[in-house]
Amino acid sequence: MLAQAFDSNFYGLSQQRDRTKGHKGSETGLSRITKLIEATLAEVNIDHKDLGGIGIGAPGPLDLDNGIIMSAPNLGWEDVRVKDHLEKHFNCPVVLMNDVDAGVYGEYRFGAGRGTRCVLGVFPGTGIGGGCVYDGQVIRGKTGSCMEVGHMQIAADGPLCGCGRRGCLEAVASRLAISAAAAQAAYRGDAPNLRAEAGTDLSEIRSKVLARSVAAGDKAVEEIIKNAARSIGVAVGNLVNLLLPEKVILGGGLVEAMPELFVNSVTRSATKRVLPTYVDTFQVVAAQLGDDAAVMGAAGWAQKTVGAG
Amino acid sequence: MLAQAFDSNFYGLSQQRDRTKGHKGSETGLSRITKLIEATLAEVNIDHKDLGGIGIGAPGPLDLDNGIIMSAPNLGWEDVRVKDHLEKHFNCPVVLMNDVDAGVYGEYRFGAGRGTRCVLGVFPGTGIGGGCVYDGQVIRGKTGSCMEVGHMQIAADGPLCGCGRRGCLEAVASRLAISAAAAQAAYRGDAPNLRAEAGTDLSEIRSKVLARSVAAGDKAVEEIIKNAARSIGVAVGNLVNLLLPEKVILGGGLVEAMPELFVNSVTRSATKRVLPTYVDTFQVVAAQLGDDAAVMGAAGWAQKTVGAG
Repeated sequence: MLAQAFDSNFYGLSQQRDRTKGHKGSETGLSRITKLIEATLAEVNIDHKDLGGIGIGAPGPLDLDNGIIMSAPNLGWEDVRVKDHLEKHFNCPVVLMNDVDAGVYGEYRFGAGRGTRCVLGVFPGTGIGGGCVYDGQVIRGKTGSCMEVGHMQIAADGPLCGCGRRGCLEAVASRLAISAAAAQAAYRGDAPNLRAEAGTDLSEIRSKVLARSVAAGDKAVEEIIKNAARSIGVAVGNLVNLLLPEKVILGGGLVEAMPELFVNSVTRSATKRVLPTYVDTFQVVAAQLGDDAAVMGAAGWAQKTVGAG
Repeated sequence: MLAQAFDSNFYGLSQQRDRTKGHKGSETGLSRITKLIEATLAEVNIDHKDLGGIGIGAPGPLDLDNGIIMSAPNLGWEDVRVKDHLEKHFNCPVVLMNDVDAGVYGEYRFGAGRGTRCVLGVFPGTGIGGGCVYDGQVIRGKTGSCMEVGHMQIAADGPLCGCGRRGCLEAVASRLAISAAAAQAAYRGDAPNLRAEAGTDLSEIRSKVLARSVAAGDKAVEEIIKNAARSIGVAVGNLVNLLLPEKVILGGGLVEAMPELFVNSVTRSATKRVLPTYVDTFQVVAAQLGDDAAVMGAAGWAQKTVGAG
C-alpha cells in the first residue's frame, strides 16, 4: 500500500509505502493503514487538524456510501469499516472508492485524460479493471462501483472466467490469460527466450518478462499479446459505441511494459468495431501516472466530493 | 410525427399527429413540423409568448449542441437546422435530442423508470435503439448521442449488420432480424399461422403479426423470438456489469406486442451474464408510455436543460 500527502494544489509533499499484511486480519490491517498515513503526515509535520480529507482506493466489492470494504478475497477481509475507523482517528472526512476508479479518475484529472469530458480506463492485470469518468463524475452504481469491463462477454462460448461465466474479456485477455497462453508456448518450445528466462510457471511470467520475451524475438508470445489486445479492442469499440469517451486510457503493468504494442493493437481493433461516425471521435492512449494515479485520484475525488483540501 | 403541448406539470393539453413526408425535402419537412406545432398550440389557444420551450426528438446522427439533424437517411435529409429554424419562428428555446434518448428519458421521468437513479432503455425495432439516464443526465457524447446498444458485438463471427460490421446485437435480435428468420420458417412450412396471415414478405411480418403467430401456436416463431431476447439479455447483462442501472426498460412495438415473453427471456439471460454481486440489483421491465414516451421525454428534457416551462 502507498500513502501520499498533498497540498491543496495536489503538489505531493510526502510518500510512504508498506505491506498490507492482509493475512494478519482486518484489525491489524486497519491499524497498519492508520500508521502509514500517520507516518506520511509526520514526515512533513502535518497535524490532523490541517487535514482537509482522506481518499482511499481499495479493491471491491465496496459499500461506497458507508465506506465499507465488503469483502477483499485476496486479503481475506470481510466488512471492514474503513471510513468510520479513519474518520474517528483523523477527525476529517474520509472517502472510500474502488482502486481502479481511483486510477482512472487520477489519470482523468492529472494524467493522460486531462482536459477531456469523458474518459474510459481499461487496466489489464490479473483481471481487467475498468472505470469511466463522465463530465467529472466517476460512473458508479447506487451503492457500489461498476464498469466491469473485464466481464463483458467477448466470446459467446469462450473460456471459463474466474467469475463463473464464460467468454468474459478477462478470461481471454488479462495478464493472467496471456501468461497462461505464453506458458503453453514456452512448454511447446515455441517461445525459447521466455522459456530460458522464466520457464513455464505462471507466477514467474510477469509483465516485464513478457516484454523481454517479445523484444528478444519470441513471435509466439507477441502473437498471443496482440490477440489479447485485439479482444480488448473489441470491448473498447463496444464501449465507444456506448459512451463516446474522447480518451481511452490503457494502464497497468502489462501496458506499461509494452505501451506501443497495446495502444496500436487496441486502436486498430476498436476502430474496426465502432460505428463509422465515431471513428475519429476517440483516441487510445497509455496511462501516464503509473502507481501514482490511484493515490492522486483518491485524493482528488475526496477533494471534489467532500470539499477536502 | 407527433406534437403535444404540456403545462408546467406535464399535464398534456393537446396533441396532433401528421406525416413527415420526408421525400418532399427538408424545407417542406421543417415547415410541416412548424405547422404541426402551431396546430397543437392553436387547439388550446396558446400564444408563442406563453411557450417555455420546445423539445424535439429526432433520429440521429445529430449535432446536439447546435440542434442540427446531420443526416436522416430514412427521410433523405442532410444538415437540417431544426433548432435555429424553430427558435426564430417560435421565439423560445428549442432543444434537439435523439428520439431514443427522448423515449428513455420520458420513461425515466414519467413512466417505468420513475424514482430510480440510473435507467437503461433498450428498444428493439428495425434496429435496436438504446439510451441511458444516469443521475438525471442523458448520457451523451461530446456533441452527439451515443449508447448504441444495437452495435454491441454479441457474436464474434455473426451475421453482417447494416453498419457494415459483423455480429452486432441488432443483426441478430432486431425486429427486422426476427422477421427475416420468421419469414424463413414460414417459407419452410414451420410457421403455418404466420404463413397464412402474412406470407413471407418481411414488410408484412410486423410486431403484432409475430405476436399473433406465437399466440396461435407457431413454436418456430416463438423460439426465434426467445433466441433474440436471449441475445438482448447478453447485451443487457454486459450493460448491468458496466453501468449498474436499477431498471432496464424494454420498449418499442415488438415488446409492446409480447411484453411478458421479452421481459422474462431477457431477465433470465441477463441474470446469467451479470456478476454474482449484481444479480439482485436490477429489474427488467416493459415501457409504460408507448409513443408518448419520446414526446414527454423531449419536453421534459427541454424543461430541465433550458428551464423551459
